[in-house]
Amino acid sequence: MTTQPDFDRETAVTPRAGEPGAYDTDLPGSFRIGMGINGGLLLSVAARALQAELGQGEDAHRDPFSISAYYLTTSAAGPATVRTETLRRGRTVSTGAATLTQPGEDGEPVERLRALATFGDLNGHDNGDVRTTAKPPQLPPPEQCVTSDQAPKEFTHAAPLLKRIDVRLDPDTVGWAVGEPSHRGEIRGWFRLPEGREPDPLLLLLVADVLPPVTFDLGIIDWAPTLELTAHVRAHPAPGWLRVVHSTRNFADGYLEEDAEIWDSTDRLVAQSRQLARVRTT
Amino acid sequence: MTTQPDFDRETAVTPRAGEPGAYDTDLPGSFRIGMGINGGLLLSVAARALQAELGQGEDAHRDPFSISAYYLTTSAAGPATVRTETLRRGRTVSTGAATLTQPGEDGEPVERLRALATFGDLNGHDNGDVRTTAKPPQLPPPEQCVTSDQAPKEFTHAAPLLKRIDVRLDPDTVGWAVGEPSHRGEIRGWFRLPEGREPDPLLLLLVADVLPPVTFDLGIIDWAPTLELTAHVRAHPAPGWLRVVHSTRNFADGYLEEDAEIWDSTDRLVAQSRQLARVRTT
Repeated sequence: MTTQPDFDRETAVTPRAGEPGAYDTDLPGSFRIGMGINGGLLLSVAARALQAELGQGEDAHRDPFSISAYYLTTSAAGPATVRTETLRRGRTVSTGAATLTQPGEDGEPVERLRALATFGDLNGHDNGDVRTTAKPPQLPPPEQCVTSDQAPKEFTHAAPLLKRIDVRLDPDTVGWAVGEPSHRGEIRGWFRLPEGREPDPLLLLLVADVLPPVTFDLGIIDWAPTLELTAHVRAHPAPGWLRVVHSTRNFADGYLEEDAEIWDSTDRLVAQSRQLARVRTT
Repeated sequence: MTTQPDFDRETAVTPRAGEPGAYDTDLPGSFRIGMGINGGLLLSVAARALQAELGQGEDAHRDPFSISAYYLTTSAAGPATVRTETLRRGRTVSTGAATLTQPGEDGEPVERLRALATFGDLNGHDNGDVRTTAKPPQLPPPEQCVTSDQAPKEFTHAAPLLKRIDVRLDPDTVGWAVGEPSHRGEIRGWFRLPEGREPDPLLLLLVADVLPPVTFDLGIIDWAPTLELTAHVRAHPAPGWLRVVHSTRNFADGYLEEDAEIWDSTDRLVAQSRQLARVRTT
């Protein structure tokens, strides 16, 4: 039994005997931030259960083309169950629903999130016709960026997550850490797992929601709970560092959209996500 | 009985006796485009059923803050049923799920779409703290823009939808209509309902998916079926014309994201949406 961090073990799901479509899992405390488990990690876990379900059989659809999660209550480290429902099996894509629950204080299941997702085969349609106009971000090399070791101790204590991931933020977008937010509404950085586990579609779902909230760059240093997050995985990521850009264009009345773009080491835009988040502004 | 077009009548839902949470509706042929009913119209109908469900009681949440729809099969004009499930009722927001079905050839229900949505009260949190950096599009006045009357007859015949809405496209973004797409991946225009019914959050859901697909501007004149669409309604729209910008940054391997921004007559960004769509490129 290894004690090394291992993303695949931490997000593993086990089919529940006698209940088709249901999977047991154990939410890892290593991904705790503040009171709850990181929303991106929950997305990865829900997707892994749907992958087990939709990735079976002749037309195996193992890649999350699109997944939307609505967050209902705060998750905690410990046992959880993902129940899946297959809505449609098609030739090129299949669609499913998932619900993640944990036992409440009275032992009754409490729903943490509900998700919908369409899965397919990212290798199956790779015809090389790429007309993207999006350009990858220009970042200083990782060794010239800011690590979470440089975050205040009170903060890292509240967020075991910060030790579980290797994030290097562009110094140009961390003015908020010294009280000088840029107010542009953008945070950029590098991402990898410290254990060297290479990126794949399931990891991209974590990465979509693992950088500091872009509200920090608007001068609001507080939690920004996600109401809804949708991620599109558009290509298998190449090995190596990922680059992530978080941005917002529309902060109003305590709500904002937060977009993430994730680029792989070959300059391919491999995933896009958007969430609706809420902050306290008074 | 009026024969005037009427968005509210066309999207009306009626509670089904004896089945709590279920609503009957009649999908209007006036919103047909090609083989199916417009996806934005379906989103409005699903939202209306969820509004009836989540808009009840003390903490009435009547406005769709976020709604995500996964499209499963092609809808047709005629009877349909929306069944809703309340996932969580909260003080500031409530979340529900909806499924829209129509009778198949054998009379058994066939699922057309599944949706998740979080509703709240857009008036309830209007604290005037708007820090959006997004800028409204600059469009020529509606009378200088391009109407669908100028579309080829074969096209308007296949799309009754085009007569049901009043869309005025920026001449700068309709080069595709004469074989000269800009390849920028952007279509801009004005929108209103011909009957003068003013915009509200439910109408914004239609508007999120009612302009020509942005793929036209990439030179691909073909249907672009939606796999998934998520819309965030961020404010009650003011009366008058809406402005809509459709854009894409990442067209690759037959799939693309299509973003919509909807602005009201006071220059407020009232809704944002993103969809994952598929096109044939060979």
